[in-house]
Amino acid sequence: MPSEFQLIQQFFQREQAEQPAEGVLLGIGDDCAILQIPAGKQLAVSVDTLVADVHFPADADPELIAERALRTNLSDLAAMGADPLWFTLALTLPEANEDWLRSFSRGLFTCAREFGIALVGGDTTFGPLSITIQVMGATQSQQTLRRDGANVGDFVLVTNFVGDGAAALAAIQNTHTFADEHAEYLQQRFYRPTPRLYESGLIRDIASSALDISDGLVADLQHICDASDLGAVIDVESLPLSPAVQSLNNNSQSYQWALSGGDDYELCFTASPEKMADIAMLIAQGKLHATVIGEMIPGHKVICEYKGESFALDTTGYQHFSS
Amino acid sequence: MPSEFQLIQQFFQREQAEQPAEGVLLGIGDDCAILQIPAGKQLAVSVDTLVADVHFPADADPELIAERALRTNLSDLAAMGADPLWFTLALTLPEANEDWLRSFSRGLFTCAREFGIALVGGDTTFGPLSITIQVMGATQSQQTLRRDGANVGDFVLVTNFVGDGAAALAAIQNTHTFADEHAEYLQQRFYRPTPRLYESGLIRDIASSALDISDGLVADLQHICDASDLGAVIDVESLPLSPAVQSLNNNSQSYQWALSGGDDYELCFTASPEKMADIAMLIAQGKLHATVIGEMIPGHKVICEYKGESFALDTTGYQHFSS
Repeated sequence: MPSEFQLIQQFFQREQAEQPAEGVLLGIGDDCAILQIPAGKQLAVSVDTLVADVHFPADADPELIAERALRTNLSDLAAMGADPLWFTLALTLPEANEDWLRSFSRGLFTCAREFGIALVGGDTTFGPLSITIQVMGATQSQQTLRRDGANVGDFVLVTNFVGDGAAALAAIQNTHTFADEHAEYLQQRFYRPTPRLYESGLIRDIASSALDISDGLVADLQHICDASDLGAVIDVESLPLSPAVQSLNNNSQSYQWALSGGDDYELCFTASPEKMADIAMLIAQGKLHATVIGEMIPGHKVICEYKGESFALDTTGYQHFSS
Repeated sequence: MPSEFQLIQQFFQREQAEQPAEGVLLGIGDDCAILQIPAGKQLAVSVDTLVADVHFPADADPELIAERALRTNLSDLAAMGADPLWFTLALTLPEANEDWLRSFSRGLFTCAREFGIALVGGDTTFGPLSITIQVMGATQSQQTLRRDGANVGDFVLVTNFVGDGAAALAAIQNTHTFADEHAEYLQQRFYRPTPRLYESGLIRDIASSALDISDGLVADLQHICDASDLGAVIDVESLPLSPAVQSLNNNSQSYQWALSGGDDYELCFTASPEKMADIAMLIAQGKLHATVIGEMIPGHKVICEYKGESFALDTTGYQHFSS
């Protein structure tokens, strides 16, 4: 192994040593990490890869790349109702650039501290820039937010705003122009999306199903439909849009972004009519920022309606968000 | 998400659905897998990335690439004394080639069945070919094979043969020529190394420290020295060499491969003089194929001796094995 890569590993190891974490019996530096799951809990595991120039510009600020990589992975724990515990990092780098690594690890550990998750292992290899993070969390069976628990008549909700992910990419790629304040907001939403762990903790005893919006609202809600063997209807006018997206003054574009954009990392969840009062109270108390956008119905597909008429989507996938 | 990539995911999901596995409360298809660790056990976790044309030829048989990726990761569980449970796969592909994927997944699931490990999650992305696998296993504190448990006077042993990894690469890269039977043996050793899980099970109550040889025997034994704050001496003549490596009739080259080659995925472990009788009995009974190659001594470095004289290494790292 090249000595420069040993330096990299020691760098991550040193950073990690400063943050001894719960349940870590043995951290970085052996063949495996040895971890103790909290008593009575199950392990929730998710893995995601971010590839340069596919998921982020290769020349982006390494601190922001790290934040985005960890935050989007944490979003999967939130979507499952799990509490963050540990993560591993597989980092593939074209060169051992010390400045890049210092910045990357600063972003990584800042974010890890913010959300209470500890780096417990990793691998550093030569190759085209990409980052694979596996997050591990703790969950309890009765609180697990699965995709297959929705029922006919359940309300469909989303947290905060949808469409920001696609708008952010349009801003970064200069296909749309935003006022400075909105461009800055969207930049933050792209690189530093907030994993909705707090919201997940509020709803995990109440919601009947949940996931996070990464592929696009319609495509993701379709996953709930598939898993629950149901259809869903979305009232397009009810979609919560951020001031940045609203500033475009182009409802048609805004709705497309909100419905098929992706990269929002908001929660989409369902709640039974009986439980909806609890959700509504959390919203009314200002604890939960969420909006009812539709309903689960018999069938197999997600239907979008605008003023009672069918609303046509350009696409239902992530890959066309900037078209 | 591109529809062709949804097909890939469904492909892996279908394969996995045929192999319901212990402790998997929720497998592929939700935001996280939900896993139940066996009672009284701890979780052992390791992650490794294999990059095309760094760790394997990009045009290699995909079935063999998959085998190598999973087997080298399983070797880390063996090195820790852990029993395999689950793994995740992050696969980055330049294109969705169905033939490639069919072959890759065949190799992956054949290997997974052989070693009793279940795929529980994954991510498939566009990009330069690379494979990141995270293996998870179960261990018990008192049986964990750490690197920091060696003491002065402990015997140093290796399982089976060392040097095959480097010899295999020399064969694949055509820098050395081997007879057909030896070339075939080395090809198998490169793509289908045997994770020493069985041997690990035999020694985990007895050995004082262990790791698997991936960087090269001297470099890896140095990790045990560093963690245990000791030195070690290797008797070069005692190194166990395979018939393939011996067929070279070049002891100097063979010893260099064995000492600094890497990619052997054999266990290097230490045993106290008191416990050595148990190890020796396992060897004498033909249950354990292992050889005493040296001793832990005061100091900080690994020293190699040949007929009582210092033996000079060309290098102590993996990257120069074919020089």
